[in-house]
Amino acid sequence: MNVASQLPHAQVTVVGLGLMGGSLAAALMARHACRRVVGVARREETVTQAIDMGIVHQGTCHLDEGVWDADAVVLATPVRAVIELIGRIGPLLPPGCLLTDVGSTKQAVVQAMQALPPHVQPVGGHPMCGKETAGLSGADPSLYEGATYVLTPLARTSDAALALARELTQAVGARPLLLDAPRHDVLVAAISHLPYLLAAGLVATAEGLADERVWKVAASGFRDATRLAASDETMMLDILLTNRTAVRQALARFEDQLADLTRLLETSDAIGLRAAMTAAAQRRRRLFR
Amino acid sequence: MNVASQLPHAQVTVVGLGLMGGSLAAALMARHACRRVVGVARREETVTQAIDMGIVHQGTCHLDEGVWDADAVVLATPVRAVIELIGRIGPLLPPGCLLTDVGSTKQAVVQAMQALPPHVQPVGGHPMCGKETAGLSGADPSLYEGATYVLTPLARTSDAALALARELTQAVGARPLLLDAPRHDVLVAAISHLPYLLAAGLVATAEGLADERVWKVAASGFRDATRLAASDETMMLDILLTNRTAVRQALARFEDQLADLTRLLETSDAIGLRAAMTAAAQRRRRLFR
Repeated sequence: MNVASQLPHAQVTVVGLGLMGGSLAAALMARHACRRVVGVARREETVTQAIDMGIVHQGTCHLDEGVWDADAVVLATPVRAVIELIGRIGPLLPPGCLLTDVGSTKQAVVQAMQALPPHVQPVGGHPMCGKETAGLSGADPSLYEGATYVLTPLARTSDAALALARELTQAVGARPLLLDAPRHDVLVAAISHLPYLLAAGLVATAEGLADERVWKVAASGFRDATRLAASDETMMLDILLTNRTAVRQALARFEDQLADLTRLLETSDAIGLRAAMTAAAQRRRRLFR
Repeated sequence: MNVASQLPHAQVTVVGLGLMGGSLAAALMARHACRRVVGVARREETVTQAIDMGIVHQGTCHLDEGVWDADAVVLATPVRAVIELIGRIGPLLPPGCLLTDVGSTKQAVVQAMQALPPHVQPVGGHPMCGKETAGLSGADPSLYEGATYVLTPLARTSDAALALARELTQAVGARPLLLDAPRHDVLVAAISHLPYLLAAGLVATAEGLADERVWKVAASGFRDATRLAASDETMMLDILLTNRTAVRQALARFEDQLADLTRLLETSDAIGLRAAMTAAAQRRRRLFR
C-alpha cells in the first residue's frame, strides 16, 4: 500500500463522541477522508445522535464491536479515561492497528502506550484547538482547520503508522508537529494549563469583591482574560492531574515574573516597569498580528 | 435650558486625539450629537489628520484656543497627562464649563479635580471600552456603543453638569453608571489592571521557555489570555502608577486564590480542585453567555 494514501482505504474508529471526537468524525465524513467512520460512545443516545447528525457511518456502545476491524482508533475522551482505555484496548485491536488519542497531556499517555501489546501501533496526539462548549452538540467539522496537531510517536512506532497518523491530522485540516512527550507537556503547561489556572483565579478574585457592579464594568478585556475559566471541568481536571509536575514548574516561573512586576510597581519604578511592559507587549504583538 | 437637551447646543472640545478621544469625537460627529466638536492635539499632523478624517469641526494645538468657548471639555489622554492638564486648564475654561475625562483610574483624577477653580464643573469619567491599537488611526465611531461608562461626580458638581455628562455618554452609545471614585478603582483593579499584569507575566513566562515551538502550539486560549499584554504601554503605565494601592490589593487577593489552587493540585485533591474549578466555570458562564 502506498504510504501516502492509507487513509482513503481505512476504517477509523473514534472512541468518545464529545466535542473533539465528534468534530473529528464530522471532519472525516465531510471530507470523505476514509472508507468508514465508526463511533463508540458510552451512552446509546449519543450513538443515535451521532448517526442522526450524519457524522459517523456506524456507532456502538461496545468498544470491542467498534474497534475489531479498525485500521485506526482515535481515543477522544478526557486524559484519565484515555489512559484507562489504553490499559484494556490492546487485545481488542487487529494487528497493525494505529492507536492514537486527542488527550491534552502526553507523557502519561505515552507511558501507558508503552505497555500495549506489540501488534498495536501507538502514536500520541494532541490537536491544539477546542472551544468552551463541551459535548457532541457543539461538534464542528471545521474545528481542526488550521490548528497545530502535535504527534508524539514512540520508539516502537512504525513509519507506516506515523504516516497514517499524519494523514489523519491533515485530512481534518490540521498541521502535524512532531514533539517528544515531555517537551510537549512543558509547553502546554505554559501556554494552556497555567493560563487556565490564572483565569480561574481571576474569576474567583473578582467574585470575592462581592459586588454585582463589578460585572457591569467588566469590559472585553476581562471577558477574554477569563474565557479559559469556562473550559470543561472534567477535561481540565484530568489535564492538571496528569501534568502536575510541568504545571507546578510553570506556576513557579509565573510567580517569579509576577513578583518582578509587583516589585517594580511597589517601588514606583516607572522606567523598569515600562521596560517589562514593552517587552511583553512587543512579544505579544509579534505573536498575534 | 431644558436639562435633558443641553448637548445639541453645546460645543464639545476633546483634548487628546488618540484612540479614545478620536473615537469619541467621531461618534459625536457621526450622530450629530452636539453643535460643534473641537479637537486639541499636541502635534499639528494629528490635528490635520482629524480634520481630514472628518471627526472634528475644528482643531488646534493650542489648549487655550480649543477650550475658551467650550460647554464641555473631555480630557482624553493617559491618566498622568489628565492630572497634569487638570492642574492648569481651570483658568482657561469659561464659567459653568463641564470638565470630564476618559482616564482609566478615578481617585487621583477626582482628587486633582477638587482643586479646580469654582467656575468649573468637574465630573470624572471612564468608558469601559477600548482596543489594542492605540492612536487616531484606530478611531472608531462605534467604539463606545453598548459600553458601560462610569461617571464619578464630585460633591461640588451641579445637577446640570452631571446631566450634560450623562447626555454625552448616551450620545456616543454608552450606558452611564455612577460610582464613587475609590470603589471604581478597586473594581477596575480587579477586572482590568490585575488581568493586564497576569497577561504580561504570562507572555514573559512562555517567552522564558526560549523555544520557538512554544508559539506554534499556542492555541486561541493563549491568544485570548494574553491579549491585554498588547495594550498601549503608556496608558497602562499611568494606570498602574495612579492605582497602586488597589492593584496591590487585587494582586494579594489573586495570589491567595492561586495559592489555594496550587495547594489542591500539589495534594492531588481531585474533589477540592473540581469544586474550585466548577465554581469559577459557573461564574464565568453566568457572566458571559
